[in-house]
Amino acid sequence: MRCEVIAIGTELLLGQIHDTNSAWIGEQLAMSGIDSLYQTKVGDNLERIVGAIELALSRSDAVITCGGLGPTQDDITRDAIAKVMGVKMQRRDDIGARIRQMFESRGREMPENNLRQADVPIGASVIEQMPGTAPGLLCPVTRPLLPDSNEKSSGEKVIYAVPGVPNEMKTMMLGTILGDLQQRSGVAGVIKSRVLKTWGHSESGLAEMLSDRINELDTLGNPTLAFQASGIEGLKVRITAKADSAKQAQAIITHEEALMRDILGRYIFAVDSETMESVIINLLKKRHQTLAIAEVASGGLVSARLTQTDGHHEVLSGTVVGTSAKVRAEVLGMSEADIGTRDAAAAMAIKVREKFDSDIGLSTTGVFDIDPDAKAAVGETYLGIATSSGVEVTEVKLPGDRKRVREFSVISLLNALRLVLQ
Amino acid sequence: MRCEVIAIGTELLLGQIHDTNSAWIGEQLAMSGIDSLYQTKVGDNLERIVGAIELALSRSDAVITCGGLGPTQDDITRDAIAKVMGVKMQRRDDIGARIRQMFESRGREMPENNLRQADVPIGASVIEQMPGTAPGLLCPVTRPLLPDSNEKSSGEKVIYAVPGVPNEMKTMMLGTILGDLQQRSGVAGVIKSRVLKTWGHSESGLAEMLSDRINELDTLGNPTLAFQASGIEGLKVRITAKADSAKQAQAIITHEEALMRDILGRYIFAVDSETMESVIINLLKKRHQTLAIAEVASGGLVSARLTQTDGHHEVLSGTVVGTSAKVRAEVLGMSEADIGTRDAAAAMAIKVREKFDSDIGLSTTGVFDIDPDAKAAVGETYLGIATSSGVEVTEVKLPGDRKRVREFSVISLLNALRLVLQ
Repeated sequence: MRCEVIAIGTELLLGQIHDTNSAWIGEQLAMSGIDSLYQTKVGDNLERIVGAIELALSRSDAVITCGGLGPTQDDITRDAIAKVMGVKMQRRDDIGARIRQMFESRGREMPENNLRQADVPIGASVIEQMPGTAPGLLCPVTRPLLPDSNEKSSGEKVIYAVPGVPNEMKTMMLGTILGDLQQRSGVAGVIKSRVLKTWGHSESGLAEMLSDRINELDTLGNPTLAFQASGIEGLKVRITAKADSAKQAQAIITHEEALMRDILGRYIFAVDSETMESVIINLLKKRHQTLAIAEVASGGLVSARLTQTDGHHEVLSGTVVGTSAKVRAEVLGMSEADIGTRDAAAAMAIKVREKFDSDIGLSTTGVFDIDPDAKAAVGETYLGIATSSGVEVTEVKLPGDRKRVREFSVISLLNALRLVLQ
Repeated sequence: MRCEVIAIGTELLLGQIHDTNSAWIGEQLAMSGIDSLYQTKVGDNLERIVGAIELALSRSDAVITCGGLGPTQDDITRDAIAKVMGVKMQRRDDIGARIRQMFESRGREMPENNLRQADVPIGASVIEQMPGTAPGLLCPVTRPLLPDSNEKSSGEKVIYAVPGVPNEMKTMMLGTILGDLQQRSGVAGVIKSRVLKTWGHSESGLAEMLSDRINELDTLGNPTLAFQASGIEGLKVRITAKADSAKQAQAIITHEEALMRDILGRYIFAVDSETMESVIINLLKKRHQTLAIAEVASGGLVSARLTQTDGHHEVLSGTVVGTSAKVRAEVLGMSEADIGTRDAAAAMAIKVREKFDSDIGLSTTGVFDIDPDAKAAVGETYLGIATSSGVEVTEVKLPGDRKRVREFSVISLLNALRLVLQ
């Protein structure tokens, strides 16, 4: 089963908006066992969109178009798909009513041109999930494709059209499209999956730990496991199960997750849409504990990430970024020279915890703090965690430039905190 | 003149790495007056890379391939281009020596397979800029393209191959490729450009201010102006000049920049590769002044952005993120209720300046601080700047969710500070 992604919008080609949707869709397809060999960006031009879709359908079984479903004259993905299907458009009154009602529920009047969004190519169906005013479309294509090519008849292929707004796209992908693709790939029944996010091990390391189980599953064929390295989001393990009913599929996944947890243990930090930050904040809320942070190495990034997450205000006391020795002395009572070492990390964690009267104190300091122009191939960074029972310092050696060292040190620190809290 | 971009790498399709290069290249092409109608991602597969390049050359004048120039067996962009050109590869000893020397200067021995990077398709030339070990390639294509298509002869087209590492790619784009493309677009002489970054005005607002000059330039034809909205990087105005020599082109640009500065004045915050952060840090260094920050609304983001910039340690005293009332009271001596208002922003800026003994105090607080779950359509945020001559508070009303409000409030604050410093 092959599926291409076409991101539609002139602003994507001009670099005014970054297309993050294609990469996300590519990851989901990979984890569902569907190949995606090409991804294309094309502008708001009918002829070129039609050409891009026809080319994609000539070499793949399915196409996901992303964007161009809005109400304005620029939004021509619907028209392009109708042209590829060789059909006319039909205005769907039920969809129009749904859009109008969506405006009214927000106390706004619907501009009449929003009804363009209720136009559906004849033969296409509307995707059930509809978080915004743009309906997603599921469009079977049965006519012989690319009449000027050698391909005379291609069987049924499919075009999915989703809006470019990331959360609307994701809701439709997870709610309808991935399942539909898996059904079309010839698998009967229901397919469900769950993603376990891990931190602290390489892909080959995880595969080694799981090798016995992977061999067993190769024989069984169901469920399947897939790995995905995802930078500071960790290494993901996706369990995918097929069964006759959703309940049975969930049961298989729950059983497999338990096996994984036995083997991987505390490397697993989150499930599905959880993040390292949301896990930390939820653990702290459950324990009714508060957090104080003293950052040097990470310069405010730990705080910036945590404060972006819902619920942070209940558990986060505050942060001090002690760039200058004066501030470290003034706010934390630390000596001027104390920086960039294991002892400094310990002292900072203890002092910010006391000073901000919190249950837990965190700290970061490292080689870039002693020598801000360090071009070290390895960024040694010390991560301190102080609690009522003492202080613990983790040393991480991270490759790369300052930006990368900062980002990875933040996640390493939060992961170390998670292990303490769990 | 049309130029397509092909990003090469299976990891891009799988979403393991986000392709940010294509968007950047698209922006540069747009600002140089070159159309980019398609951008494609393709995996590390020789046949598919060759197909993607041939397709792109059949519909455009030039192609930029990005990635696949490394030393491993996966890196097959060189081979694909040789195949498209219909030529063999030649190992270039001078390039091999350059790569070997690059390793030695870092005290490392060169693995022999790095010599693969010295293989160059016959007829191609090596791009002069070479910040890493991967040489960029400039590959003229003269054979009739796509022999099975109707196109019998296409004149000379060109493939540029650049590494996927962003800074290497950018150095080659700015140093060679954009200029070469502009030359090929039929313009004799030298083309130079300069980007003025502005903040505080919409695209239509700027165009209105500049309308007289735009009309004059439409008649003159040289230099040209282009606008590019770039989110939190502001709205860019690119001046492009053509002349017989680089010196003349620079003179035209300098003259035009002076005119722009007369009209746009303090809306211009940076030039070319400067950022809002680097401008702020350089202004502070020049004035030998230090900065202390109290963030609530932005939760550490002002600090995280400034500390990512070279030279920040000379001017940044420190930051306190006062999420809890306790920390605001303890560190800044503020009353518990003081939050989310104009007065709170003023008090915080004054107090963090005093407390951290700095020349300037900054603060952010707003609607999300009073009600963290606010679903306000408009995020009212107050930005405080305290100096020896008093305190100034700017109110910004920013649309969007918490993430967007935070990001825009950071840039708005830094811009307000820049106006004070200048």
